[in-house]
Amino acid sequence: PPSEVWRQRARAHLDTLTKPLGSLGRLEDIAAQIVSIRRERFTEKVNKGAYVFAADHGITAEGVSAYPREVTHQMVLNFLAQGAAINVLARLHDVELRVVDVGVDADFHNLSSLLHHKVSKGTQNMLHEAAMTDEQLAQALAVGAAIADDASAAGQTMIAIGEMGIGNTTSASAITCALIGATATQATGHGTGMGVEAHARKVSIVQAIVSKHFTASSANSSALEILRCVGGLEIAAMVGMILTAANHQLVIVADGFISTAAAALAVAIAPTVQGYLIAGHQSEEPGHKLLLDHLNLVPVLMLNMRLGEGTGAVLAMPILESAIALYTQMATFTSAGVSGASR
Amino acid sequence: PPSEVWRQRARAHLDTLTKPLGSLGRLEDIAAQIVSIRRERFTEKVNKGAYVFAADHGITAEGVSAYPREVTHQMVLNFLAQGAAINVLARLHDVELRVVDVGVDADFHNLSSLLHHKVSKGTQNMLHEAAMTDEQLAQALAVGAAIADDASAAGQTMIAIGEMGIGNTTSASAITCALIGATATQATGHGTGMGVEAHARKVSIVQAIVSKHFTASSANSSALEILRCVGGLEIAAMVGMILTAANHQLVIVADGFISTAAAALAVAIAPTVQGYLIAGHQSEEPGHKLLLDHLNLVPVLMLNMRLGEGTGAVLAMPILESAIALYTQMATFTSAGVSGASR
Repeated sequence: PPSEVWRQRARAHLDTLTKPLGSLGRLEDIAAQIVSIRRERFTEKVNKGAYVFAADHGITAEGVSAYPREVTHQMVLNFLAQGAAINVLARLHDVELRVVDVGVDADFHNLSSLLHHKVSKGTQNMLHEAAMTDEQLAQALAVGAAIADDASAAGQTMIAIGEMGIGNTTSASAITCALIGATATQATGHGTGMGVEAHARKVSIVQAIVSKHFTASSANSSALEILRCVGGLEIAAMVGMILTAANHQLVIVADGFISTAAAALAVAIAPTVQGYLIAGHQSEEPGHKLLLDHLNLVPVLMLNMRLGEGTGAVLAMPILESAIALYTQMATFTSAGVSGASR
Repeated sequence: PPSEVWRQRARAHLDTLTKPLGSLGRLEDIAAQIVSIRRERFTEKVNKGAYVFAADHGITAEGVSAYPREVTHQMVLNFLAQGAAINVLARLHDVELRVVDVGVDADFHNLSSLLHHKVSKGTQNMLHEAAMTDEQLAQALAVGAAIADDASAAGQTMIAIGEMGIGNTTSASAITCALIGATATQATGHGTGMGVEAHARKVSIVQAIVSKHFTASSANSSALEILRCVGGLEIAAMVGMILTAANHQLVIVADGFISTAAAALAVAIAPTVQGYLIAGHQSEEPGHKLLLDHLNLVPVLMLNMRLGEGTGAVLAMPILESAIALYTQMATFTSAGVSGASR
């Protein structure tokens, strides 16, 4: 887990800086957390990466999204052409962006800028069967783990965990129900945008999925079994990356509902992972707030975003970097010759 | 005022970008607002400035702050030595920082990096008399106006309005009472940090100040008269800068309680200024929320900060810049060949 000794050391240092005690608010909590994660390496230059894991979902056959399944493929091409929101944000904030095909239902052939790790061309339809086989789950987890190894080896210190996959809010909703006992109504939002009727239909599909895989007698399903039955290949890869990134003592910035569902599964598998997580933002998906509360994470930003791709995580990075810069660069009361508080 | 035509044009453009409709949430509102302010110049490179107006306050004789009055002077030296929080944030986020002496109770002599515009060595004690004379008020307003002219002439497009002045939360509280009818209890917080007893004393001082200058029969005092009686030289300079910056069609980012009190006075003087304002954050001072609600501004950040110096405004700038970058750089559904939503 992150080091309590380093966290206390960080708190003591923060109190010597030329500002009223505690006046940097959440930035002080963030700085202390990052120091507790990075320990003696906290002074290293912040080196930021963002990972977008893409995959398709069998559940799209049930019409759970406002967008057609082909959009997963089309958006991957948009990422590679630098035209998507995450490209703009990564460029602006000096974040190295990598796009990973874990299970898109298309052939990408010679695209050298894509990380090719296709496990299969999408999951099975989880309304009728488990989304993945044991083997597919293991492969997808390993994809994420290997990418975390590479990120660490490349000297990255802070990573954003993003995704693209038409239909994957349905997975996130089902995971939220199975993992923390939320109802389908509580955990199901409007995804990328849908009307009242389509939303009601989505709630009933989530309910049916949860009922199929998790009977009352199977309460307390393991996190891996939840992931296998109602997850997605990109979600499994995110879980694998988060688990391994924590081992490498990286600062892990979760994005929206789907990314946070992966984080919650990772914490269920290895509870010490919690201390490495920062919630970049809170999205408009109602299930996202349930998961953040479950994980005891306070989001850095609340901007009513609901886009995914890692956008909320990357957008929080300048704030996180600010916390580190303040911690390492501010003068102390003594060094600056500033009088302290009298009471 | 900002252009409604440009705002509508911006909204229409946002809906063509490769993202679900409205999925960038508040970033879309921010982009549309900035386009409405900058109009055809919205494509110009974002050029950011931050201004810290410093002055002392006669009311410090009443012991309203946890810090001694000398800290205003000492912190100005800290700003010039690059050691304060605002220095770190401005450096990290590529913001040109200028520090303005409008009324610090000290002689700065040959400090070339300071903007020397001292009107007097602090205000009078507003518990007993008006904080400023008419002439002092006019001079301080003119200081801010001239600096806004310079900012615009230098090509700045977005400015953060910050301050440093021991005792100035007492001014902000009194302004909040006089301007929007809040009670001293509602409008008075813990400033830079004080215990329960000191806080109760501060509330009663704010109450006494408000009672002295604004009798029931003088209800609806003009904004300028409120500023003169219970403001500060740095607050008056901020009002002057905000008024003139709006005329130059700059994006004006308010910081915390004191900066927002200046913004509220500027809007009371010239209501169209409201459309040029962005609230960088919401601080822990209870009066700040009252003013933001009064101004109908939604803060970009809520990080429990209470430091001033323009820190919350500068910290919001990477988010604002992100909104502009997304607006100008994202691909459209048509250009990227991505399918739209079916419903």
